[in-house]
This record gives sequence, C-alpha cells and structure tokens, in this order.
Amino acid sequence: MIKVKLVGATGYGGVGLIELLLRHPEIEITTLVAASDTGKPISHFYPHLAGLCDKMVYSADEVEAAAEADVVVYSTPDKVGMQLAPAEVKKGRKILDYSGDFRFNSTQLYEDYANRLGIDTTHHAPELLKDSAYGLVELHHRKIANSKVVGNPGCYAVACILGLAPAAREGLVETENIICDCKTGISGGGKKPKPGFHYPEAYDNAYAYRLTGHQHVMEVERELSLLAGNSIQLTFTPQVIPMARGIMACLYGSLPQGTTQTKVLSAYKDFYKDNPFVRVSDTPGSTGDVRGSNFVNLTVACDERTGMLRIISHIDNLVKGQAGSALQNLNIMFGLDEMTGLNFPGAHP
Amino acid sequence: MIKVKLVGATGYGGVGLIELLLRHPEIEITTLVAASDTGKPISHFYPHLAGLCDKMVYSADEVEAAAEADVVVYSTPDKVGMQLAPAEVKKGRKILDYSGDFRFNSTQLYEDYANRLGIDTTHHAPELLKDSAYGLVELHHRKIANSKVVGNPGCYAVACILGLAPAAREGLVETENIICDCKTGISGGGKKPKPGFHYPEAYDNAYAYRLTGHQHVMEVERELSLLAGNSIQLTFTPQVIPMARGIMACLYGSLPQGTTQTKVLSAYKDFYKDNPFVRVSDTPGSTGDVRGSNFVNLTVACDERTGMLRIISHIDNLVKGQAGSALQNLNIMFGLDEMTGLNFPGAHP
Amino acid sequence: MIKVKLVGATGYGGVGLIELLLRHPEIEITTLVAASDTGKPISHFYPHLAGLCDKMVYSADEVEAAAEADVVVYSTPDKVGMQLAPAEVKKGRKILDYSGDFRFNSTQLYEDYANRLGIDTTHHAPELLKDSAYGLVELHHRKIANSKVVGNPGCYAVACILGLAPAAREGLVETENIICDCKTGISGGGKKPKPGFHYPEAYDNAYAYRLTGHQHVMEVERELSLLAGNSIQLTFTPQVIPMARGIMACLYGSLPQGTTQTKVLSAYKDFYKDNPFVRVSDTPGSTGDVRGSNFVNLTVACDERTGMLRIISHIDNLVKGQAGSALQNLNIMFGLDEMTGLNFPGAHP
Amino acid sequence: MIKVKLVGATGYGGVGLIELLLRHPEIEITTLVAASDTGKPISHFYPHLAGLCDKMVYSADEVEAAAEADVVVYSTPDKVGMQLAPAEVKKGRKILDYSGDFRFNSTQLYEDYANRLGIDTTHHAPELLKDSAYGLVELHHRKIANSKVVGNPGCYAVACILGLAPAAREGLVETENIICDCKTGISGGGKKPKPGFHYPEAYDNAYAYRLTGHQHVMEVERELSLLAGNSIQLTFTPQVIPMARGIMACLYGSLPQGTTQTKVLSAYKDFYKDNPFVRVSDTPGSTGDVRGSNFVNLTVACDERTGMLRIISHIDNLVKGQAGSALQNLNIMFGLDEMTGLNFPGAHP
Repeated sequence: MIKVKLVGATGYGGVGLIELLLRHPEIEITTLVAASDTGKPISHFYPHLAGLCDKMVYSADEVEAAAEADVVVYSTPDKVGMQLAPAEVKKGRKILDYSGDFRFNSTQLYEDYANRLGIDTTHHAPELLKDSAYGLVELHHRKIANSKVVGNPGCYAVACILGLAPAAREGLVETENIICDCKTGISGGGKKPKPGFHYPEAYDNAYAYRLTGHQHVMEVERELSLLAGNSIQLTFTPQVIPMARGIMACLYGSLPQGTTQTKVLSAYKDFYKDNPFVRVSDTPGSTGDVRGSNFVNLTVACDERTGMLRIISHIDNLVKGQAGSALQNLNIMFGLDEMTGLNFPGAHP
Repeated sequence: MIKVKLVGATGYGGVGLIELLLRHPEIEITTLVAASDTGKPISHFYPHLAGLCDKMVYSADEVEAAAEADVVVYSTPDKVGMQLAPAEVKKGRKILDYSGDFRFNSTQLYEDYANRLGIDTTHHAPELLKDSAYGLVELHHRKIANSKVVGNPGCYAVACILGLAPAAREGLVETENIICDCKTGISGGGKKPKPGFHYPEAYDNAYAYRLTGHQHVMEVERELSLLAGNSIQLTFTPQVIPMARGIMACLYGSLPQGTTQTKVLSAYKDFYKDNPFVRVSDTPGSTGDVRGSNFVNLTVACDERTGMLRIISHIDNLVKGQAGSALQNLNIMFGLDEMTGLNFPGAHP
Repeated sequence: MIKVKLVGATGYGGVGLIELLLRHPEIEITTLVAASDTGKPISHFYPHLAGLCDKMVYSADEVEAAAEADVVVYSTPDKVGMQLAPAEVKKGRKILDYSGDFRFNSTQLYEDYANRLGIDTTHHAPELLKDSAYGLVELHHRKIANSKVVGNPGCYAVACILGLAPAAREGLVETENIICDCKTGISGGGKKPKPGFHYPEAYDNAYAYRLTGHQHVMEVERELSLLAGNSIQLTFTPQVIPMARGIMACLYGSLPQGTTQTKVLSAYKDFYKDNPFVRVSDTPGSTGDVRGSNFVNLTVACDERTGMLRIISHIDNLVKGQAGSALQNLNIMFGLDEMTGLNFPGAHP
Repeated sequence: MIKVKLVGATGYGGVGLIELLLRHPEIEITTLVAASDTGKPISHFYPHLAGLCDKMVYSADEVEAAAEADVVVYSTPDKVGMQLAPAEVKKGRKILDYSGDFRFNSTQLYEDYANRLGIDTTHHAPELLKDSAYGLVELHHRKIANSKVVGNPGCYAVACILGLAPAAREGLVETENIICDCKTGISGGGKKPKPGFHYPEAYDNAYAYRLTGHQHVMEVERELSLLAGNSIQLTFTPQVIPMARGIMACLYGSLPQGTTQTKVLSAYKDFYKDNPFVRVSDTPGSTGDVRGSNFVNLTVACDERTGMLRIISHIDNLVKGQAGSALQNLNIMFGLDEMTGLNFPGAHP
C-alpha cells in the first residue's frame, strides 16, 4: 500500500480525502497531522468516522508526525506547504498541496498571485517550483505523472478551466470578453464559521463577493491563455448560494463567425473523449448530478441567436474541486488508473 | 376604501397581494375568486391567514364573484385575464393582470410572445391592448397612472430591466453582447409541485433550464431597446437555486471606450433618484437584503480591467417581482403614493 | 408617540423589534444602543433597513445613549439589564428585558436559575424583582399592565407554557411525567456564528443538545406548577433542526382517567377564548403557519389509545418567542390594545 | 456474483440499492424493472449514474424482465411484492421486499396492518408468510439467514426498534407510556412531488402528520412486545422537518425504580456489542453523523431528575432505513459478512 501523510487533516479538504482513501485498494492514510484539534482521534472531531477511522491527530512537532510516508498531502492554507515540503522532498517523498503554493511554477507568477491575495510574496521553496505540476489531470496528465510536487487546483478553477479549455484551444470563443459567472456552495469557504456562512444569514439568500481579484482567476487565465496561445483576461463573479456542496459556473464568450452549437458540442466531446470524469451533453444538468462524486458535467448551450458561446460547468467543489482531484492526482503520481477509488456516483438525493 | 376583486386568489401571487392589502390603509380586497380550491375560506388553504382573512373563495360563475369592485386583479396564467377583462372594463373597472396578456400593446407583439411560449397566438381583447401599460412603475409611471389596463411585469424582467435601464438609456453598455445570468428562488415556479421543485431534488442543488426562449426575455429586450433606441438581443440564462424567494441577476455587457465604474455608478444613482424602491450601491449586497420587501438593490461593479459593465440586481421575486409590483401599480392607478402599504423592510433573518 | 430606547440593537432580538416598530402607530424607537457594531447606522449592519431606519448605533457611554425615553428595552444577554435598569427606573422609565434577569421575582429563584446556567448568582437589582412581571401576556396580562419592569419570556418557554397551561390548570394531565420535545430553528442561537450553526454543518442535519439543565426549563416548571397548584418537573429535550425560524414543541403527559380528546380540545379553546394570538385546533399545523407573526398555533391531538395528552405548539421563535412578545408586552405596559402593530400574518411561503 | 433483479428500480429505494451495489464485490444488479419510466437507461432518469450504470429499465411484462436472478428485490408499494413473489419463489429465487407485504408473518397480523392503512386486507401469498423474516438484522440475524423471504423494515421502525430494544428486553423502561417522537427528512416520502414536499412549502418549516395510525407503529409495537414479553402500545408522532435525509427519533419512557443512566448505558453497549452498525454513546450526536451510511447512532440520555428513559436514535432513512438495511439483509441471506459493501461513512459535510 502507498502511504499518505495528511497534513491539515481536520479541515473539509482533509476529511474528504480520508473518506475517499478508506475505500481505496492501494493507497492508505498512515499519519494525520493538524495545527489544532490534535491529541484526539479524528473521529472525535468527525463522529461519522467512528469505527472506520479512529487514527490519532498529531501536531507537526510530535514524533509520530514524522512517520514514514510515500507522499505528503498538504490540505492547508497558503504558505504552509512551501515551508514544510522541502524537508519531505529530501526524504524522497512526493508532495501534493491543496493551496496556491505550488500552482505556479515560477517565483514571478507566484508573486503576482500572492500580491492579488495580499499575502507575503516570498516563495520559501523556489527550488521545487520548476518541476511542479498543476494538478488538473485532464490537461496535465503526463506532467503530473512525472512530478514530485503537484499543486492541486482551486475549486472554481477546475469548473472554469475544464468548461472553457476546448473552446480556448480550438478557437471556439473570442478571447476578449469571456465571463465566468460562478455559484458555489458554502463548504467552499471551509470549516470555519463566519458571519456570511451562519445558517440564518446564508439560508434563502444569494450574494456575490470579492468582485475583483479572486485568487482563482489567475489559474484560469494562465491555463486558458496557454491553450489559446493568446493572453486571456476574464470577468469573474464568485457567488455564494444556499447549498453546502457544488459549483455551477456559467461561462460565456462571443462565438467566432460561423461557429455553431453543433460544432462546439462535437469539439467538446472530442476534447474529453479519453477523460472518464468529464461528461459532455447538450441538455441542462444540475450540480446534483455530480454531488458527492468526481465527475464534471458540462452542458454545451450556445445561443446562436445572440452569437454567444455558453457552457455550464457543474462539479462538487469538495470532490472534483478538492479531495477528488487530489486523489486523481495521487493515482497518476503513483502509476495507478486515475479512476481507482473514484469510480462511483454520489448518493441521490 | 378602494375595492379589489382578486381572481386567482389561491396561488402565491394572490396570497401575496392579500397579505399586503391586509395592512393597506386605502385599498381592500372584497372578493376572492379562484378556479379550484373554492367553497372554503382562504384561510383553509393558507392557515397563516386564520383570523386575519377568512373570506370565502368563490368560483368565477358564482354570484358572489360578480360583486362590486373598483379594480379586478388577475393573478392567473396566460389567456385568462384577456377573456374576462373586457366585461369588467365595460362595468368601468380597472384591470391589473399578472400574466403576459397585457404586457405587449399590439397584437403583433403578443403573437411573437405567444409563439415563443407555444400557446395560442390569438389575443381575445385586442381592443384593450392599445391603451394598456407595462406595469413597471420606475419606467412607466405616467402611463400607468392613466391606463385602465396594466400588465404586471415578469419577475425576471423586473430584475433585468431595472438593472440595465440606466446603462441602456445612457449609452453605458454596448448593445450587442448583453448577458443576463439569472438565479431564482423556487417560488418563482408557483405553488404547484413539480419534480424539480420536490424538496429532495431541489435542496443542495442548482440547475439552469429553458436555455432558449424564456418568455420573459421579450419584455426585457423590448424595454431595453426602447431605452437604447436600438434593437437589443440578449443572452438569458435562467437558473434555479435552493432558496424559496429571491432573484439575483448578474448582468454583463461591454463598457464603451472610456466608460468607468465611477461614471456608471453616478449615472445609476441619478437615474433612480426619484424612485424610492431602488437602492443603488457599489458594494456587494444579497437577496436577503430585499427579501420580503418591494426594494430592488442594484450593485454597480464594473470590471475595468476587462472592460465589462457588471450590474448585480436583487429582488424578491414574489414582492417586487409580483405582488409588490402589483400593489405599487394599484397605488399609481388610484392616485396614491407608490409606497403606500409597501414602505417596510422584510423580516431578518 | 411612546419613545423606546433599545439596548442591544444589533442582535436578532433588537432588529426584530426595530422592524415591528417601523409600522407601529404609537410606539417609536428613538435611541439605538449596542456593545459592539457602534458608530454607524443600523442599516450598515442590516442593509435591509436602508432608507427605512438609518439611525446611528451608539455605545452605552455616549451622550446620545442617554436621550429621553419612556421605556428601555434590553435585548441583551443575562446580567446586562439588571446592571443598567435601576438608573433608568429612577428616571421614571419602564423596563423590558429579554434575558433571565427579570423573569424570576425573588433572589432565591434567580439564584437557582443562575446556578443552572453556571453564571454569577448575585442579582444586582433585587429591589426591582418584587414588582417585576413575567412577560407572558396570555397568563399575566394584569400584572404586566401594572409593572414597571417586565421580563420577556424565553422562546422555548413561550411554546411550552402556552401549550400546557390549560392542561395544567384544568387537571387534564398527570403532573409527574410531562415531556417537552422541542425543535428550534437556528436563529434561536442568535446572530453569532458557531460551529453547529455553520451552514455546511447545520443543513440537512438535526441534533439535540444540552440534554440536562436548559435554562428555559425553570420558567416552564414555575409557570405550570403555579397553574397546577402542584410541583411539576418535566423532561425537556431541546433540538436544532435545519430551519432559520420557528419552534415546534411536542408536549406529552398522561391523561387522567376519563379525560378525552374532546374534553381537552374544548378546554383549550375556552382557556384561550380572549387571547387573539392563540389559535387552537385539532388538525396538524406547521411552523410555517406562524412564521413571521406573533401567533401561537396549538394542535390538540390526544392519543386516546395510549392515554396520552399530546399538544403540538408552534411559534416563530423570533416573534412570539422574542420581539413580538416584547411588543405585545409594550402594548400592555402602555395601555394599548395588545394586537397593535402585531395584527398581521407572516409572508407565505 | 450473486444476481439481483430489482423491481421498482426508479424510486429512491431502488436507486439507493443500485448505488450501493455498484461498489459491492459479490452482488450485482442484473435486471431493472419498473412500473413507469421504462424503455430508457436508468441513467436517463438519474443522470448521476451516467457512465456507471446505464442499464435499461424494463416493464414487468417484457421478456428481459424475466432474466435469471438469485434474488428479487421489490422496492415497491404495498401489495406489489406479494403478487409477484410466489412465481419467483417457485423458480428458486429469494425475495426481499421493501413494503409491509412480508413484515408480518401471519395473515391475521397482516390484516391488522392493512386495516390500519385502509388497504385491501387480503394477503395474496399467505403461503410465504410463515417462513418470512422481519429484516432487522440486529434482532433477527439467524432467521434472516434461513429465510427465503424477507420483509425489509420501515424507516421509522428501524430507528425506534433499535433505540428501544435493549430497554424493552432488559426491563429498563416501564411499558405503559412509551413515546416515539420522530423527525424525518423529506425523502422519506419518496420521489413523488406532493404539496407538503414542494420546496417553498417545506423549507423553513416543520410539521407533524398522521397523528394516529402511522403504519410503522405496528412493527415497533410487535417487536418491542416480543422483547419485553409484554404487550406494548406506544404514542408515535411522525414529523417532517426541512432536510432531505435522516431520522432523529427521541424515545421516552419511565425508568423503573432504581434504574440509572449508568446502568442503561452499559446495557445498551452490551446489547449491541456484536452489531457493527450500532454505535452507542452518552453524548449528543446528530443525523449528520450517520448521513449517507448504514450506521445507527444511539445516544443514551436518561433524565434521572424526572425518572425518564431518553434515547435519541439517529439513522439515514434511505440507508439504514431502506437500501442499506436491504443490502445488509442480502448479505446475510447469501452468507456474506453483513458489512460487505456497507463498511463506509457518508460524506461530510
């Protein structure tokens, strides 16, 4: 069995990976580390795991936290993974990080990102950047397979990039006025209670936030620009709607002259024909169709009357947007089939 | 007191008006009529009204349904009001209709609308169309004051038209690639249970529907084209999110060269300076801020980096999107201040 | 107009009273005081009030907080009102307090209560206790009318006491095994975000808490014991369910030999015949029927097969359970009809 | 692989079993049958299954519906399984039925049950009743292992019986005034839209229903009476709360003289020591802790002050309350470990 040390075990991103690996035939979690909520079994903090995973949660400075591992997964905020990863890499361990720490493979790109977030712009492990991979398997399968360090993508970024990648690469959209209108469930904000996520404030309510400078925009622009061979800047509107899980991104841009719905649909199907987690359709879907699973459902719904490309992208922000992508990356990093342990639907309803 | 006969009393649009008129100082409901759920007090069907409104619900053919009234309100589906209104007008009564029957003041426009819906294109009261008014007070105050027949606007249309009207009239948006990305609460689908509105299907779920040809698009295009002096066609994406009440419409279009956020904000504030129900701001709001009230909250949030006009429009689909607009129209039709009986916030949370 | 100074204006209990008094013909809020969130208009914190109530929120030590008032309302935690009220009473002002500070009219009873909560047992205004009234109008109308100090009841207490009062007084229930199985909406926990109220934790979830020693139990036992002329101890199970507003309390006890559903129903109707906010029925209702209003809906549903009294009590925890009861008390304290400003249904749905 | 024919494949009970068996190592679904929604793949009706289970749904009279099977599962309403099962039994197939058809193993008990429901009291397969088993593994493991016909228990019944079984058998509760106060998520009402399950009616709302004569009461009384050796009649209050999944049952009864919390807790732990799906605790839990899984969480929380046994039982109504119990039964019926394919937690949050 491949051994995983999970740092940041007690957040939603951590517990999501624990749930997935409980049923994985070849990868197991051997060590749980967290900054707080330590000294008790993980099932104390997440009682649904009682009897299934009762491993102790250690703090990083405890001896048990240094146990053997083949890979260290950082389900931690920005700036944590980059500080701890170099020592692990020296021990020959692979790294998968959930934050922005390893999503950009130059210090300059990282600085831009950090500036946008308003955090310290110094990268503490620049030597790891060069060979790090952006962990979106559908676009970077080979690179991920060959990298020791992988940066798991942002949840919105997964929805937007996969939704627009075929159009960007195949020239099915004008690049100057792309819009990503993104609705997320509240778990996207993590485990920590905040006023806007307080049930009485969040129920029966919808609101937009951070109308400029959301940190995921950079990943989307970078990936789409690479595919288009052309610099893309896009308008991004993140919104919170009263659900726990799911992202629905409505993606718009102008259709080039002569580009039809039929052509776009066909190009999308072709682009993703070898990607088992991407389901392309021309009928409306729902976030419910991907809830609890690693699938991405893309609806191609161009409006030929107005000449507009319109793609609706649906993911579960905690699975394909986080822990599921993480496992998909782990599978690739260790030479397994990407669907291993992920080949299941969510529970309906 | 001004006397209202309410036809279609037992739907959400009817009960919303009943609730509002219970606290109105000058307008009262005297007669309740419905197609089904008759023969019992309205409080039998809506127990929250018990002791407050226990009026009997009659069918249209009962003698009590013919009682005196100053105005007849049709909270009914398409094609009902147009059949019943002519006889009422002959008795000197005014008409307010919630459906598309009187939103278009020529038979040709009505035919286009009916075609889009796939319903019979014949208008049964063409003689009433010419002087009918489109019941959006912020744009048609004078016409409504002078009309005997008013067509209450569609809920999405209220959110989109008010969100784009200043930009359209003042040339603050290019007219060829406007997008209305609209999220609605489920009450927008009415009282009748349907699969997509079944709680286990609708909770924790978001989905788009009717991706071409939503019936409200025509109203929006007509009104904006009139304001812009230019034919506008827009891309409209209606979406259902798991809330009961509220519409959040994200409205996009290209900013003309040199048009800034400051200029747009100022133009919006100016446009609505005499409209007490429209609150313009440059900070993000929420549907919760307008829930249960007749207010429209507009956030002006242009993205200067990408050259995009972005307006976020928030209404309560059952109040400003339906019964509240209806009362606002009634107030104007009878020479009252438009805020009478509507000058209150919703209950928070 | 009667002038209200509201202390604790920025919590749910405060804003609820603001909303109600905006439409009250004879009582107005003149001063808003809070411990935090000061120095800005209340509409900054509650944008739904923008344009309707933009009064500044002051801290208690600012000069504006000392403005004239006929009554001071403390929508504050335990121990606040008792410290501030004596000075106000000396100025001739009446007091209405939302906490447990004035619900018990002896220091000994207060000590028992404080012990149960694990708070300091010293009462700082013992001289005000003797003539204070327990603010449940249906039981203490006369006392409230004649008291300068009124303790607004706890939300669960309102549901349970009104649900069991007729049975207790009329001997329709055995007193030794009464059960109050109480489900509350999450706003009952107030405005402050906490882990159990975080949307992703609270949605699609139900849980019981504080299984012994909930602070409201004492009020219920005291009131029912007084009515029964017999000491009553009851089993109380508070539960949180995924809704924002509402309490549904299922109340059980053994029927004395020969006590039938018919007799109980008749006794309940008789008991409340002069109480306009209590609606007694023998058919199942819902919290939705009282949502947003000051009504209490009681379903009398004895199970004759098993000899069990069963009453289901429905209130809105923020209205009849808090701000609505507060206004009902204010009406009585100032000689107004108890329904003034409260005679309306909530909005459905 | 053991072959399952699933009749009633398109309801929640059917799709739940499909989801579970997709990941089962030894049991597979080979045939899907339904009364409506036929002629298309199951993934047409449940798009979350696309690519994972695209089997065609057949009507019972199609030749494909007669394919080979080791067991036929009826996820169907009352009266369906009893008509179809005899022919299947003759072919040597085992039967598992979700309805009340095989929960009672005498025609007389069935008549009582049918009378309570107001349905035809004739049992059409009386010859199968005698050896049928009540499919609650924790109580009837051996019988289920040896039966050809098993009646899957009702969802409420699972929560109540498992919550009270140890008390009933060990004499830890007086038998004459037991109360089951049961809160269910809305999926308990099935897939069919109904007014009380319409999102705008069901959200932020709680209500009790069928206050006498719920059909699950009989199973609970029968099982508890058998365990107690004493006829038990109980008061049962089914309630709908705004969640999709989960049952929380608060179970009450008088403690016999001298029975303490410690003793009860110990007895419960002992009773279930060999039952891997039952987790006994003395701290409050939540339905969230069992959501999406086959576990039953029991909180033992006696109120010694009032002498009351109080057990809070939490299950997922669609898993342990339906498809999970079904699979647990199938495992036992075919000699597999009962946890096979069920040994996992739900996804949190």
